[in-house]
Amino acid sequence: RADLVPGGERYICVDWGLSRLRASLCEFAGGASIVQDTLSGPGIMTARHSIEDILFETVSPWMQQIGQVPILLAGGVWSNIGWRTTPYVACPFTIKELAGHCTTFTARGCDIVIVPGLECTNSFGETDTMRGEELQMLGLLQADPSKLSGAHLVCLPGTHTKWVLIENGRIRNFQTAVTGELYALMLEHSVLLAHDGEPEAVAAMDAEAFSLGVAACRAAKGAVSHALFSARSRLLKQQLSADGARSYLSGMLIAADVIGALGLLKPPLEQVSLVGEPALCERFSTALDAFDLESKTLDGNIAATQGFSIVYQSLYQQERDRSASV
Amino acid sequence: RADLVPGGERYICVDWGLSRLRASLCEFAGGASIVQDTLSGPGIMTARHSIEDILFETVSPWMQQIGQVPILLAGGVWSNIGWRTTPYVACPFTIKELAGHCTTFTARGCDIVIVPGLECTNSFGETDTMRGEELQMLGLLQADPSKLSGAHLVCLPGTHTKWVLIENGRIRNFQTAVTGELYALMLEHSVLLAHDGEPEAVAAMDAEAFSLGVAACRAAKGAVSHALFSARSRLLKQQLSADGARSYLSGMLIAADVIGALGLLKPPLEQVSLVGEPALCERFSTALDAFDLESKTLDGNIAATQGFSIVYQSLYQQERDRSASV
Repeated sequence: RADLVPGGERYICVDWGLSRLRASLCEFAGGASIVQDTLSGPGIMTARHSIEDILFETVSPWMQQIGQVPILLAGGVWSNIGWRTTPYVACPFTIKELAGHCTTFTARGCDIVIVPGLECTNSFGETDTMRGEELQMLGLLQADPSKLSGAHLVCLPGTHTKWVLIENGRIRNFQTAVTGELYALMLEHSVLLAHDGEPEAVAAMDAEAFSLGVAACRAAKGAVSHALFSARSRLLKQQLSADGARSYLSGMLIAADVIGALGLLKPPLEQVSLVGEPALCERFSTALDAFDLESKTLDGNIAATQGFSIVYQSLYQQERDRSASV
Repeated sequence: RADLVPGGERYICVDWGLSRLRASLCEFAGGASIVQDTLSGPGIMTARHSIEDILFETVSPWMQQIGQVPILLAGGVWSNIGWRTTPYVACPFTIKELAGHCTTFTARGCDIVIVPGLECTNSFGETDTMRGEELQMLGLLQADPSKLSGAHLVCLPGTHTKWVLIENGRIRNFQTAVTGELYALMLEHSVLLAHDGEPEAVAAMDAEAFSLGVAACRAAKGAVSHALFSARSRLLKQQLSADGARSYLSGMLIAADVIGALGLLKPPLEQVSLVGEPALCERFSTALDAFDLESKTLDGNIAATQGFSIVYQSLYQQERDRSASV
C-alpha cells in the first residue's frame, strides 16, 4: 500500500449490493481521489449477522494499518434489512446536492456516512427506486459536464438496468428493468437452453447470435415472453450452438430492455450515456446501435469512485475550508 | 377398474411432457372414450434411461391386467432426445387430418402410435413448434364445432402458452410465450420477491393484486422487464403482501403474454377459446377481460382425451368399419 501523499486524506467507500459488498480504500489529494486497495464481503441478501459487524470485519485489515477513517456507504445498507434507515430522496432531484442528504453518525470511532437512494414515480406511474447508482450519476456529471445542461438519457446496465432522464443536472425520473436478473435466471434454469456447460453471469459473446436475438425481439415488437421461445426452436434446428443460444438470449433481453425504455421514456435524444461494467455496456451499445442510437460508455466503478469522492469532498474538504476561513 | 363394456376397446394414451409423463387408460365404446385410470412417470427432460423402458415400466400395472393394447403417444417423445423421430407437420394444417400423419410401429407386442407435433413460421418470422397441444386443438374442434368455420383465436396456457389462429378448421399459425416458465423461475429465485413461504407452481390467488399487476403491465405497454420491478417497490412499501406479490407478478406476466399476442397476431376477434388447466385459464380469462375480450374455457385434460379418442377412432374404428364393409 502506497504511503499517504503530503496533505492527502484517507477514507473508505463501500458499495453494498444485494449480492456483494465492495469496499475501496481511497486517498483524496489535490481535489481528486484514487483507489489504493479494494476488498470484498457478503451482500445484504446473504448477510447473516449485524451489518455493523460485517462492515468492520471486512475493513479490519485496513483499520489495523491506518487507524480509524471515515467510511462512506451506499447501496442496500439503508434498506429495511439494513443498519440505519436513511430516507430515499424524491426526484426531481439535483444530483450534486446528494452529500447534503447523507446520514452521518459515529460507530467504533469512525465517521459513518450513509448516502441515500433516490425514489421517483416512473414513466408508467409506479414507484421506482435506486440505491448505489446515484453515485455513478454524480460521477458521470463530473466526468462529462456537458450533461449538466439540456436533456439526457443515461442507462446503467446491471442485474437491474436503470434508465435515467436528466434535465439540466436534475434527475427528472428513472425506471428499472430486471434484464440482468432474467438473463441469469434463464441461463441457469430455463428449459429453452441446453444446460451442458458452466453458465456464466456474462457468457462468452457470439456477436452474430447476439444481433440475431436483437433482431428477433425487434420483429416481435419487444414482446419478450413471445420472442424467447425462438431460442429453443433455433437450438433444435441447430441454427444456434449452446453458446450462441446464450448470446441470442442476451440480445433478445437487452433489446426488450431498450425497446421498453424508448417506448416508455420517449427520449428526444440521439445519444445515450452508458455507465457500468464495460463488457455489459458494450452489449447495450450494440443493441442501441440497431435502433440508430449512439452511445458513450463510462466504467461504472470509475463513476462510483468519482461520486464517492465528490461526497467526501463536500462533507470533509469544504468543512475544512470553512473552518480555515473563519 | 371397471370391466370393459360389451363392444368396448381399451387403449392407453400418453402425453409425455418435459417434466412429466401422464398416461391414461381409456375405453372406447359407442363412439367416445372414457378415462378409466391414470398413471404418472418421469418427463423427457429427466428420463435417465431408454424411452421405451420408461414407457413400459410406467404402464406395466395395466398391461399385467389387461394385456397388450395400443399405446398412443404425444408430446416430447419424438424430439431429438426421444425414441423414434416423427417429423413435425407444417402449418397451415387441417387438424382433423392429424391421425393420417402418425408414425405407427410395434414394440413388445403393442401397437405404438406417435402423434406428430406441428411446426409453423410464426407472426414475427420465427419457427415455432407445438407438441401435445395439437391433440387439445383436435379435441376443442370436436367439442365446439362452431370453431370449424371462420377465424378463431385459441390460447392454451401452460409452462409455455400457445396462441393458435384457426381458419375454417385449419391451423394457420401459432406462437409460444414462455410465461409459465418465467413465472415459475421468478417465484422460486427472483430477488424481487420475499422468499418466506413455500412457492407453488400456481400460488394462492389474490384477485385484487392480480388485477393490479395486469393494470401495471398495461400501463408499461407490455414492457414486462420494466414493469416487473414494481413488484419489489410495492413489497418494500408494504402495498403488497408476499402472497399478493406473487399474484401481482402472475397478473403482470399474463398481461404481457396477452399484450404480445394481441399486438402480434392482431386477431379480428372478440372471443378467445382457452384450453388448459381450469385455474390457470381463469387467470387468463381475467386478463383478457381487461382487454375487453370474452373467453370460454375447455379443460385441457378433457380436450386432450378427446383428441386422443379421435386419433384412436380414425386409426382403429374406421379400419374395422372398412374391414366389416368389405
